[in-house]
Amino acid sequence: MRVAVVGASGYTGLELVRILLRHPIFELVAVTSEQRAGQPVGDAFPALRGQLDLSFERADPTTLAPKVDLAFTALPHVASAPMVRALRAAGVPVADLSADFRLRSLDTYRTWYGEHPAPELLETAVYGIPELHREALRAAGLVAVAGCYPTSALLPLVPFLRAGLLEPGSVVIDAKSGVSGAGRKLEAGYLFSELDENCMAYKVGEHRHAPEIEQEASAAAGTEVCVTFVPHLIPVTRGIATSVFARPRRPLATADARAVLAEAYAQERFVRVLPAGATPNLASVRGTNFCDVAAFSDERTQTLVLLSTLDNLVKGASGQAVQCANLMRGLPEELGLLEVAMLP
Amino acid sequence: MRVAVVGASGYTGLELVRILLRHPIFELVAVTSEQRAGQPVGDAFPALRGQLDLSFERADPTTLAPKVDLAFTALPHVASAPMVRALRAAGVPVADLSADFRLRSLDTYRTWYGEHPAPELLETAVYGIPELHREALRAAGLVAVAGCYPTSALLPLVPFLRAGLLEPGSVVIDAKSGVSGAGRKLEAGYLFSELDENCMAYKVGEHRHAPEIEQEASAAAGTEVCVTFVPHLIPVTRGIATSVFARPRRPLATADARAVLAEAYAQERFVRVLPAGATPNLASVRGTNFCDVAAFSDERTQTLVLLSTLDNLVKGASGQAVQCANLMRGLPEELGLLEVAMLP
Amino acid sequence: MRVAVVGASGYTGLELVRILLRHPIFELVAVTSEQRAGQPVGDAFPALRGQLDLSFERADPTTLAPKVDLAFTALPHVASAPMVRALRAAGVPVADLSADFRLRSLDTYRTWYGEHPAPELLETAVYGIPELHREALRAAGLVAVAGCYPTSALLPLVPFLRAGLLEPGSVVIDAKSGVSGAGRKLEAGYLFSELDENCMAYKVGEHRHAPEIEQEASAAAGTEVCVTFVPHLIPVTRGIATSVFARPRRPLATADARAVLAEAYAQERFVRVLPAGATPNLASVRGTNFCDVAAFSDERTQTLVLLSTLDNLVKGASGQAVQCANLMRGLPEELGLLEVAMLP
Amino acid sequence: MRVAVVGASGYTGLELVRILLRHPIFELVAVTSEQRAGQPVGDAFPALRGQLDLSFERADPTTLAPKVDLAFTALPHVASAPMVRALRAAGVPVADLSADFRLRSLDTYRTWYGEHPAPELLETAVYGIPELHREALRAAGLVAVAGCYPTSALLPLVPFLRAGLLEPGSVVIDAKSGVSGAGRKLEAGYLFSELDENCMAYKVGEHRHAPEIEQEASAAAGTEVCVTFVPHLIPVTRGIATSVFARPRRPLATADARAVLAEAYAQERFVRVLPAGATPNLASVRGTNFCDVAAFSDERTQTLVLLSTLDNLVKGASGQAVQCANLMRGLPEELGLLEVAMLP
Repeated sequence: MRVAVVGASGYTGLELVRILLRHPIFELVAVTSEQRAGQPVGDAFPALRGQLDLSFERADPTTLAPKVDLAFTALPHVASAPMVRALRAAGVPVADLSADFRLRSLDTYRTWYGEHPAPELLETAVYGIPELHREALRAAGLVAVAGCYPTSALLPLVPFLRAGLLEPGSVVIDAKSGVSGAGRKLEAGYLFSELDENCMAYKVGEHRHAPEIEQEASAAAGTEVCVTFVPHLIPVTRGIATSVFARPRRPLATADARAVLAEAYAQERFVRVLPAGATPNLASVRGTNFCDVAAFSDERTQTLVLLSTLDNLVKGASGQAVQCANLMRGLPEELGLLEVAMLP
Repeated sequence: MRVAVVGASGYTGLELVRILLRHPIFELVAVTSEQRAGQPVGDAFPALRGQLDLSFERADPTTLAPKVDLAFTALPHVASAPMVRALRAAGVPVADLSADFRLRSLDTYRTWYGEHPAPELLETAVYGIPELHREALRAAGLVAVAGCYPTSALLPLVPFLRAGLLEPGSVVIDAKSGVSGAGRKLEAGYLFSELDENCMAYKVGEHRHAPEIEQEASAAAGTEVCVTFVPHLIPVTRGIATSVFARPRRPLATADARAVLAEAYAQERFVRVLPAGATPNLASVRGTNFCDVAAFSDERTQTLVLLSTLDNLVKGASGQAVQCANLMRGLPEELGLLEVAMLP
Repeated sequence: MRVAVVGASGYTGLELVRILLRHPIFELVAVTSEQRAGQPVGDAFPALRGQLDLSFERADPTTLAPKVDLAFTALPHVASAPMVRALRAAGVPVADLSADFRLRSLDTYRTWYGEHPAPELLETAVYGIPELHREALRAAGLVAVAGCYPTSALLPLVPFLRAGLLEPGSVVIDAKSGVSGAGRKLEAGYLFSELDENCMAYKVGEHRHAPEIEQEASAAAGTEVCVTFVPHLIPVTRGIATSVFARPRRPLATADARAVLAEAYAQERFVRVLPAGATPNLASVRGTNFCDVAAFSDERTQTLVLLSTLDNLVKGASGQAVQCANLMRGLPEELGLLEVAMLP
Repeated sequence: MRVAVVGASGYTGLELVRILLRHPIFELVAVTSEQRAGQPVGDAFPALRGQLDLSFERADPTTLAPKVDLAFTALPHVASAPMVRALRAAGVPVADLSADFRLRSLDTYRTWYGEHPAPELLETAVYGIPELHREALRAAGLVAVAGCYPTSALLPLVPFLRAGLLEPGSVVIDAKSGVSGAGRKLEAGYLFSELDENCMAYKVGEHRHAPEIEQEASAAAGTEVCVTFVPHLIPVTRGIATSVFARPRRPLATADARAVLAEAYAQERFVRVLPAGATPNLASVRGTNFCDVAAFSDERTQTLVLLSTLDNLVKGASGQAVQCANLMRGLPEELGLLEVAMLP
């Protein structure tokens, strides 16, 4: 089954390449990059020398469409939507990693990203977290692969919201992200010398992933859920460690909280509910499609503490995209995604 | 004014040495270490070659007492109390960096650390955060220098508690600490290969600093305050970045929240209230005695977000100890403590 | 084909597990660890949860031998030899990752490691760098998988020595290694706080890998080659970057030097000779079995500069062991070893 | 004594500010930055909040000259020379941190940097390593503060060259530098995600510091010395660890080699010759003006191994500039420079 990666020279694009190269069914037949068009992939990225025999090409939907059975689009928001529209018009199923089709409300999109370039497609897009929307994904022609922070917050949180166990106004999310989440953006703040041995919160209460979390949290709760979202940068390349705090509607013991997760994810391959007492860490999920989760309850303060870790470029982006694409094409969901984390 | 550092070969002990070497009044006359007794300091720690001309000696209160005007004790908890007792009995003022004299309740101490080795001294000990207890510190003979996490949480939090602005049961603390907080402990989890590129929560709801935070928060609020405390390790050597979340009793705008901090710390040299919109980072406080703080209010969810950063070995330990000792000896509080952070 | 990893809880043992789990022919049927015997692997190492269904067992050659077609031994030197002897006596082919069978001279072994525990096996052991000893490895019953530093130095150096291009007394090796090379050793020097932002040479002229390099270099040159070997620790977990300096016997242009490597490794899958001007880096080989090499000639000073990078736990240990084992069992050499490096 | 830092917002400029703020005689009265002119320093760099009360101004020699007794210029090469010319014309002593006045040969300058903007000043400039050129520095009006790599290589090497102990064509330098050496340059290669866990050689045989090393090495040897120079980037922010390899003219024992260094630097405050067997590390010199050095001799291969570490922004730039300026103004050389390294 032939696939293309549109926007393959960014961090999520390259991660797609890495995953697709070991995928047993998807065959990577085209990679695009405006900047590097014409360049063999191995020349541009020495790590890929000897691993694939493709050159970057310009992203042209007309030439791409006939030669692929599915496309992954990993372009920046706003730039992605027109490309997606063209590919969909040509009948190509698309897993889109940008933010363009994640928000169901055009108003919310406008607030955070500006005018929507392809509003007519919003209705057809399915939000891409397979553990939460599996059936819809099987039938989807366009998947809006979920953001990294939202995935890390929603996976531990949704089972509690669905069960109506939480006060909807009480959700606080403190997330710590590796630097690759910013992509290859050339800003002084992302230089090694500025970030090593450093850590800081940023965009307190004004990060673009907050409305995405609220949309899905509200859908799960069946009522409006607002969240306080405080993202941090930590000096690691890959990984997000998220703490979610919320007030249960009625007293909840740690064992019961853990049972909620254990039951919700009993059949899931990629969400690992840790044993009682254990806390998730980044090293165990780095390079993998796993999301490790744990639940604790502080009964004195009636606070539920949910912890999760994932690799922002895999389960938070490209791995999840392939997981969605497997579903879209009727393949076993875990194909190409069972890599083992490096230790150490 | 002659001072000694008892337990000078650990991380907080060495940091005391570093600070005292540039202190204009305190003269470092003795450093102790059981393991390294007899060894010139510069032989044991090459970084100190050519910087001081002392050898480690065994910690003997009888020989130490006559030659110092103040002692810093930087021993592990339980080990510290007997040494403090002997020095106090000999009339030596002591700034103690262990946890032995921080908790006012013997029961609480017993729960977390075991039987108290010198309970009779508890009454006389003053909790060592100068910004919160300055007057008492001026008169103190024994100071229990505050822990690193408690300092990072209490400095932003106490002004709000004192003003009665918060629901006492609503305080959640998510703290990210550098690895030096664990000292030179030989456990596999602290090896470079295990921690680099890693991050994890630990001791959720069961960290020894929680009761210390609750004691001081309750005193500030005038009512019992319980906190949910979730500490994390991040791959930096020095620094703690703390987020405190709480529910205000009545709606609070970000500007008002910031004003609470600005007013409380207007005269303080070591607590910097950041300009509106700015968030504290570790790099700006590393190696210094500063604690940078900021406040944000998420009015939609009625959540107050307080952020702080400090260097766990300086404002979280040895710098704060010197700040306390300056007060104990009637010196200007900032002596020896105005180091500028390295950029980058 | 059933295989076991003896000593599977150390860093090289775990890396073997990681590689073997995706190997299409080798089936991992037993993992041993004295300390963790009885523990499910996923309990001991959360990263492996959901990835394999084995528990650690004690290393007992009698029970192991009947159930495996090949064993990887990843025990410390001196401890390894008796285990290898027992397995070989039971007819099990062994790829040994320790230093016990790498040195052909008992005297040299004695100098560096003490009395040899199984000297009778030395004759039969084949030194395990497939690019240098492929044919012998196909017939081997016992392979002494090469050390990490030796592999990184010998791969770029040997083609020049074989061609008689270098002054034998002129070889200088400056190597920079990640910290995982020390294993999970509990020494203060390997703590995160001691190594982060740090770098140092160590064991100048007295590292155990020097005689191993000299043995193989001399064999390649057909004359005795002594090397000056200066290893360094750098603050990365995985990877070795090595610079080799040597004096050519006659003037050598950079293009000619590069051609020597290009010709030597034209057919090799795992040694990548970089394009002219490019220098190898660690990121491109991390997690992979590749060794990237480059050659430069400083004609003014008549100095040849050879550069290489590899992952010390893969091409420098466990990946190379699997490569050797593939040869021993008559399988395609690259099976299980074509992982793509993570970018970034 | 009033001083200015011209180009104060780059890494070496900020480091000058940090050092000058604790200097007992130099008073920092002006800091310039074209980009940040008008901005209070503490607003631009939060780490400096509460530490100084200056705003950045544009660099105007006419207004600067009357108000300072000495200027530090920390501008990029080529940009620096015209500013230095103007300040010198107005009679201001200048310590210049750029490369503009380090090379004595206009031809060499042209080869590496282009046409020289102020060739008439070359004759008057003194190369700024106090341990090598102290007397000339006392009389200098213009000091060309030495580069970071040259300082790290020359300090261990020059005593051997002066004594005529080395083959002049045999010098090889393998240096490992922290990333701050590149300044705040916005290139993808300096992003955190690209450099963390990475390491690579770069500009093999074509780094601009090579001719600077050769100039000073030749002067010390009294004959032309060519060096093979291979710089590396390692994932630390500050610090250079350098290994120098050379062939002695006659056999040299390690003890004799160490004695050469010990004798040369017996009276030096900032060059620490380590005890026999010890190797220098970055942590011991970080943030300080020290250069730690050690010598080893591999008698089998007749190779001398010299090791050094220093902080590229202090002894490799701004600390050395202040050391030079102290000499220029007749002050004790170590004023403001005795900071103790942070441990850890």
